[in-house]
Amino acid sequence: MNDASPKFDQGAAGPLIPVLAVVGVGLIGGSFAAALRRAGQVGRVLGVGRNAQSLARAVELGLIDEAASLEDAAARADLVLLATPVGGLADVLSRMRAHLRPATVLTDAGSTKAEVVAAARAALGDRAAQFVPGHPIAGAERTGPEAADADLYRNRTVILTPLAENGESSLGLVRHAWQACGADVIDMDADAHDRVLASVSHLPHLLSAVYMEQVAEAADASTRLALAGSGFRDFTRIAAGSPEMWRDIFLSNRDAMLAELADVRAVLDRAERAIADGDGAALLTLLDTAARARRNWRKE
Amino acid sequence: MNDASPKFDQGAAGPLIPVLAVVGVGLIGGSFAAALRRAGQVGRVLGVGRNAQSLARAVELGLIDEAASLEDAAARADLVLLATPVGGLADVLSRMRAHLRPATVLTDAGSTKAEVVAAARAALGDRAAQFVPGHPIAGAERTGPEAADADLYRNRTVILTPLAENGESSLGLVRHAWQACGADVIDMDADAHDRVLASVSHLPHLLSAVYMEQVAEAADASTRLALAGSGFRDFTRIAAGSPEMWRDIFLSNRDAMLAELADVRAVLDRAERAIADGDGAALLTLLDTAARARRNWRKE
Repeated sequence: MNDASPKFDQGAAGPLIPVLAVVGVGLIGGSFAAALRRAGQVGRVLGVGRNAQSLARAVELGLIDEAASLEDAAARADLVLLATPVGGLADVLSRMRAHLRPATVLTDAGSTKAEVVAAARAALGDRAAQFVPGHPIAGAERTGPEAADADLYRNRTVILTPLAENGESSLGLVRHAWQACGADVIDMDADAHDRVLASVSHLPHLLSAVYMEQVAEAADASTRLALAGSGFRDFTRIAAGSPEMWRDIFLSNRDAMLAELADVRAVLDRAERAIADGDGAALLTLLDTAARARRNWRKE
Repeated sequence: MNDASPKFDQGAAGPLIPVLAVVGVGLIGGSFAAALRRAGQVGRVLGVGRNAQSLARAVELGLIDEAASLEDAAARADLVLLATPVGGLADVLSRMRAHLRPATVLTDAGSTKAEVVAAARAALGDRAAQFVPGHPIAGAERTGPEAADADLYRNRTVILTPLAENGESSLGLVRHAWQACGADVIDMDADAHDRVLASVSHLPHLLSAVYMEQVAEAADASTRLALAGSGFRDFTRIAAGSPEMWRDIFLSNRDAMLAELADVRAVLDRAERAIADGDGAALLTLLDTAARARRNWRKE
């Protein structure tokens, strides 16, 4: 049962996390619960959510043992994963604060970190040390408890952006929980995280959506779409993602997005100038650098 | 043998194309020859190319019956497919002109058409009616005769951009040849072709390469690339394409590229302003239009 986490010997001490609470029992939260349960690292699992039907389904699927209120989760859990939209985190933490036991550790799964850190500090005040910010680099198109998958985090990266006041034991608990899910855990500064994610995740999404919007708006859009092929298919796949989720991410990561976008625009200006000037040498240099970098990226 | 082309009954009349010549026996030219041979629509196949070893391999693979010179192909072939880079077409046609029989039909497979038409008119003069411009929307990462595949064009679209002076029989021969390869053949105006292809093929390539170049140039490129996931993978896949081929396409299709790019920039400006202003409603409208358009595009 414990093969996913050879580092931990629960022995007579019981599971790593006697009571786990997951706020938002969908793909991210449900998969976390499923992976920890399979690894034998959790005792009881509480699920918190606004949709009673969805929570009942999560119980049926064995993801959680019972539905609970936020306040109840704060009072009973040893570890709470907040798998809610970034925009709603401050409210959730404010409601939990008065009910938190001193030993309870909170973590999240939000796609941006600087804003989350600021919101958590504001909402938790002197309890902020109990919150360890995190971001699992995993996801899929599917949503809801049915999408939960105990293997979702296997060999994926989880980035933690610890607060200066996080204690070693809080940090260790969150790190060990993700490792028990099969993930590689790395630490980064919150601002560095946001810049890197703006670059390799958020900006491709914006560019793909902007491009797709321009095609859809064209007078001859139907002809265009009828003649689009496999390059178009791959380039625009991410533009189909949740508009609400990506709006929140772009706004939450505004400064990093704008900085990265300015850098991309500078390269686009160069490329456009080369095309306008018929400067084949400059164009070739640019395309060659890109092609080499992409061919050297081995992760497929 | 003739199942790929139920429309033609070669009967006692022999194959549709007694002598086919392919200039450039790689993926595009080799696949055309292989598909026509399998459909029983060709007699003898001549292959023209600069690399003797590659031509010898094409003979071994059964794609062509013999290697030939350009002049020889012009004098002997009933149909010639010019599967050479767009930039080299004028020179190839100039060399063939004096040797062409009046009944020989020429066609090409270039990714842009307005420039090809102009080059063909200049090179062929009063023989221009023998040239039927075409563009099969198919391709793959693989190159060379080994990549040839008799199924490459099956259910793919081939766009012809006929000249006003093309005769019905020339046009019909090219159309029938591609249909015998399993393709759907449509006609378009050359300028309309170039605009549509700039939009759905060339521009995604430029944006993907520009983005990839910006990531590769960043001081923390290795961290970025290590944390890039499946969205990045799909968005940048086309950036790995041949720099030389794409340079030629961008320059050959300059006017349409610049016009499309200006339109994409206008949407990008809108998106950037919405992010800078924290205008969630404007951002959501844009992302929602893009997501709906992509989800409604069914071609996978």
